[in-house]
Amino acid sequence: MGSKNRSYNSLKKTELVVLVCIICLLTLPNISCQTQNTGMANVISERKAEEDHRQDSADLLIFIMLLTLTILTIWLFKHRRFRFLHETGLAMIYGLLVGVILRFGVHGQRDLNNVTLSCAMTSSPATILVNVSGQFYEYTLKGEVRDTDGQDVPDAEMLKKVTFDPEIFFNILLPPIIFHAGYSLKRRHFFRNLGSILSYAFVGTAISCIVIGLLLYGCVAFMKAVGQIQGDFFFTDCLFFGAIISATDPVTVLAIFNELKVDVDLYALLFGESVLNDAVAIVLSSSIIAYQPAGDNNHTFDGSAMLKSIGVFLVVFSGSFALGVITGVMTSLVTKFTKLHEFPLLETGLFFLMSWSTFLLAEACGFTGVVAVLFCGMTQAHYTYNNLSDESKDRTKQLFELLNFLAENFIFSYMGLTLFSFQYHVFNPLFILGAFLAVFLGRAANIYPLSFLLNLGRKNKISSNFQHVMMFSGLRGAMAFALAIRDTTTYARRMTFSSTLLIVFFTVWVCGGGTTQLLSFMNIRVGVDSDQDNPITGVDGIERRGVRHEGAWPFRMWHSFDHKYLKPFLTHSGPPLTTTLPTCCGPLARCLTTSQAYQSGGGLHDEDSELIGNEGMGSPMYTDTAISAVTRSSSSNHLYGPKVPSG
Amino acid sequence: MGSKNRSYNSLKKTELVVLVCIICLLTLPNISCQTQNTGMANVISERKAEEDHRQDSADLLIFIMLLTLTILTIWLFKHRRFRFLHETGLAMIYGLLVGVILRFGVHGQRDLNNVTLSCAMTSSPATILVNVSGQFYEYTLKGEVRDTDGQDVPDAEMLKKVTFDPEIFFNILLPPIIFHAGYSLKRRHFFRNLGSILSYAFVGTAISCIVIGLLLYGCVAFMKAVGQIQGDFFFTDCLFFGAIISATDPVTVLAIFNELKVDVDLYALLFGESVLNDAVAIVLSSSIIAYQPAGDNNHTFDGSAMLKSIGVFLVVFSGSFALGVITGVMTSLVTKFTKLHEFPLLETGLFFLMSWSTFLLAEACGFTGVVAVLFCGMTQAHYTYNNLSDESKDRTKQLFELLNFLAENFIFSYMGLTLFSFQYHVFNPLFILGAFLAVFLGRAANIYPLSFLLNLGRKNKISSNFQHVMMFSGLRGAMAFALAIRDTTTYARRMTFSSTLLIVFFTVWVCGGGTTQLLSFMNIRVGVDSDQDNPITGVDGIERRGVRHEGAWPFRMWHSFDHKYLKPFLTHSGPPLTTTLPTCCGPLARCLTTSQAYQSGGGLHDEDSELIGNEGMGSPMYTDTAISAVTRSSSSNHLYGPKVPSG
Repeated sequence: MGSKNRSYNSLKKTELVVLVCIICLLTLPNISCQTQNTGMANVISERKAEEDHRQDSADLLIFIMLLTLTILTIWLFKHRRFRFLHETGLAMIYGLLVGVILRFGVHGQRDLNNVTLSCAMTSSPATILVNVSGQFYEYTLKGEVRDTDGQDVPDAEMLKKVTFDPEIFFNILLPPIIFHAGYSLKRRHFFRNLGSILSYAFVGTAISCIVIGLLLYGCVAFMKAVGQIQGDFFFTDCLFFGAIISATDPVTVLAIFNELKVDVDLYALLFGESVLNDAVAIVLSSSIIAYQPAGDNNHTFDGSAMLKSIGVFLVVFSGSFALGVITGVMTSLVTKFTKLHEFPLLETGLFFLMSWSTFLLAEACGFTGVVAVLFCGMTQAHYTYNNLSDESKDRTKQLFELLNFLAENFIFSYMGLTLFSFQYHVFNPLFILGAFLAVFLGRAANIYPLSFLLNLGRKNKISSNFQHVMMFSGLRGAMAFALAIRDTTTYARRMTFSSTLLIVFFTVWVCGGGTTQLLSFMNIRVGVDSDQDNPITGVDGIERRGVRHEGAWPFRMWHSFDHKYLKPFLTHSGPPLTTTLPTCCGPLARCLTTSQAYQSGGGLHDEDSELIGNEGMGSPMYTDTAISAVTRSSSSNHLYGPKVPSG
Repeated sequence: MGSKNRSYNSLKKTELVVLVCIICLLTLPNISCQTQNTGMANVISERKAEEDHRQDSADLLIFIMLLTLTILTIWLFKHRRFRFLHETGLAMIYGLLVGVILRFGVHGQRDLNNVTLSCAMTSSPATILVNVSGQFYEYTLKGEVRDTDGQDVPDAEMLKKVTFDPEIFFNILLPPIIFHAGYSLKRRHFFRNLGSILSYAFVGTAISCIVIGLLLYGCVAFMKAVGQIQGDFFFTDCLFFGAIISATDPVTVLAIFNELKVDVDLYALLFGESVLNDAVAIVLSSSIIAYQPAGDNNHTFDGSAMLKSIGVFLVVFSGSFALGVITGVMTSLVTKFTKLHEFPLLETGLFFLMSWSTFLLAEACGFTGVVAVLFCGMTQAHYTYNNLSDESKDRTKQLFELLNFLAENFIFSYMGLTLFSFQYHVFNPLFILGAFLAVFLGRAANIYPLSFLLNLGRKNKISSNFQHVMMFSGLRGAMAFALAIRDTTTYARRMTFSSTLLIVFFTVWVCGGGTTQLLSFMNIRVGVDSDQDNPITGVDGIERRGVRHEGAWPFRMWHSFDHKYLKPFLTHSGPPLTTTLPTCCGPLARCLTTSQAYQSGGGLHDEDSELIGNEGMGSPMYTDTAISAVTRSSSSNHLYGPKVPSG
């Protein structure tokens, strides 16, 4: 809360008063609707539905107004050039305030309409028809109720009403955030550091998960010894905590990096790592849940179950990856071989629908939609983006930027609200202390050893300053929260959720708020022109310097294949297939090459080609339209500021 | 279906084969998921939820793929310059095909998990806790089941799964469509014909509702006499049908008008009428539902109940109107007095959230969200739009254009699907015939007498050709469907719904498909430059000619007030308040006038001022930036075509 007070200091007093008034007003609709709820003892279903709808509208209105307020305050902060508090931190603070008001300021009546039926049933079917004096009413199963006695939480009904189904995060709010991350990845710098990024994301996340799990298991064992724990907390719960808390969030730090124009390699490493480890963490956590040893005791070690879990991880991850790539490739083929780019609205609509269908397809097949959407976003940026008309390029970027912005701020303000509105918090000081320590050490065990190993192979070393920044910038955010809130039925999961919430608050406010100071303390060069990789400046000697590091042969091979065959096959850019395919495939190549590909220049230059050192390329003329355009996209990402003339 | 065959004739055969293949593929996910559904006799709640989620994803995927297919076919049609079938008609056809396949091609198993409890209960509470051998399960009330015996519909469960909650239309799909209509209204031509538009929308819709209601009541009485009706059908049901079917849909016809650049006044009359009568119809239908006479017999005439219904209409309509305008005005004030336009993303976000909050606010207060959203859209276009940065202008237009496009096509394809998937259709040939006749006569009773009366007062007469086109262009669409599907519990409502569906199909395919022919048959001038109202061409004599008609004093007064005080107060455009307010208000005026207002020119010209004949205006220099811009917006509305150089 330190940074909050600091930030308010220099705001005008009147502004503060207005903000407080608006916050109070925010809770009004809820109060008034609450009083209307009383006196309805025997509701008929239609009335009830109508009343519910009005209540739902009022609840959603609270969040919309919270977001509006956040936007206005962000503007005030940007206008006055604050950098201590990012918008997500701000959204959390507002959520927190509304949570406090709802918890302690508003008193609603308890809903006394619950009736306990004690019929002899041997199962819990999905639907029950209840016969009430001749008329049948349909009831659907909502879930098992664990606490029928009910904890003594004030206004439980009231708080329940501002609580969303956790699946909303996975099915509505996370997909646009993750897609946007994939779509706006700075691809050139990303591919340049691909090896390191993959190491951090896969090996690093696994290390972090195991280290945190082991440390916490020690902590829990100690707590059991001193009698500080009131429920079961198994090793799988510890590992689960390790998995969800290993998902770092790119939002806050990268927004500041973008504004300050921090070194592009550091940016690529951090962004790439945080984007990919979200995917790893989500699949990892579901694999841990899938770990179910045979026999009665669920919590002993079982080799075959462990193998099964690893199998689940591999299948789900590769399946989601494949689905994401396939829909991306399909979109690029459709946009290439139709003249859809004449109609930007249709093109944008198709792009949006295809990207959404990835998510649904993955979910329908039992894979992970969010992971599929990430790889779909990357494929769309790499291939489809080249085929879009200029207007569609703008439209798709702006659309997903807006969706990302709204979803992100919604999640963060909900997070703030949850600290007070969630009814089953288990705050255990010892466990929380242990969790903070474990998260710190887990991050350290991820970054430092891996960087040491990677530096052995890298020409462009990851300096120790960079390592410290990466260590410090491992904020936890939306993904950790969404994974933690998904299941809060057991004691262990509730403790996990409460601790995760505190870790998110701490990292966003303290680590996020201190980024600017850290960068200047670490002497990280800022003000680097992120447009340096456009075709014109890209050919000078200075840029060439850093371009070829990490040209390990798998990446070179992949890139050469991508440049020679995939790009020309899927997009209008790159060299025509007629020049890259063997002559025997001539007719096929001619059939697959569009007139734009021939028109796009006489030579063979491709921006990405710098990676593979022009092997097999003739003259440097084929410009890959995606590169500079996507770079523009990423640099405008999170930079809502007035356009600074670049270069 | 005639137009469909016609349209396919000139498509290549291969294209047709591909389309059919895709349609068959579309139903695959459903089939496969369906077979997985079998054999789950005793599901536990988590498994069930997971399975449900997968099924939901698969169902939604069908619609997404349907929309994708529609987009591709629209492109094909546009590419080959078809005008017989609009995209919405196409979406319906695809929905129809998938409905046929689901109904007759796919056979799922019945869900046998329903258990009928026969406990002694005196009420139907919202939540029941069921005690199954010590564990409590929570069930929520879904609604009353009328047909527990079940009609003999094949695969009822299967069809139920592709059925959405009707409230989705009102809460998710209609708001963006209606907002977009309000936001893209051609305001200048709209205001020029405001009196006529209001007459058609209010008086005309009321006439149409009553005429259709009376005719249908006669029809129903006849059917009762010959024993052709199997349930109750009261006069209120007839009036309800009249209200919902009076909502005309602007989509199809106006898209064609836009492409052909039809006379702007005709366009304004039709668009204005269809937009506003949606609002009138929705409030009218809810007032009719609210009509509940005292005593036991609900279907006698009761003066006080009737007065109450009229009161409901007035309160709901004016309340929704006021809420829409208030949020619009608030948005314009916020965008005027903050420098939010430096950050387009924040500005767009705020705009979106404020517009959405109108809907939620209206719903929470018991007014009609869709109506509020319409007037909010108009206010945003009239005031807020002037304050937005150029990038935000583009972003907001494009965002709502896309949302409108997707929502519209979704509704229309769902409509097609519903013809076969809805389980309680009551197709009564006599009633349907009566309904078609009543709709035709109701439309005639709206257009011709009103036009005659209006022509008495108008300088620029509405010619008989225009009247015929307006008569013919009264298509029924999304709003009529959404209102009809909202309640399908009684026999009368089911018959209403089935007939509405057929009327929508007929008008969209036949009337929509014949628009081009009608226009040429009626000698309506096409190719009118819709940009004629930009400041440069607007000052020539030809344009002036039509400009001042309908300058009745209420409109003149309103316009003068708007131009002199409201516009300068709410936006950066118009004359500075310092020049229009009396000198005694000098300090206030200076405080409310931003530097942009002073900078925007030295004179007082405002595009809208042509309406009121320059009274009180000095030199023609203050350009109202909104006019030409919004005109651009409307003209690009539905015109996804290649940019035709205008003028």
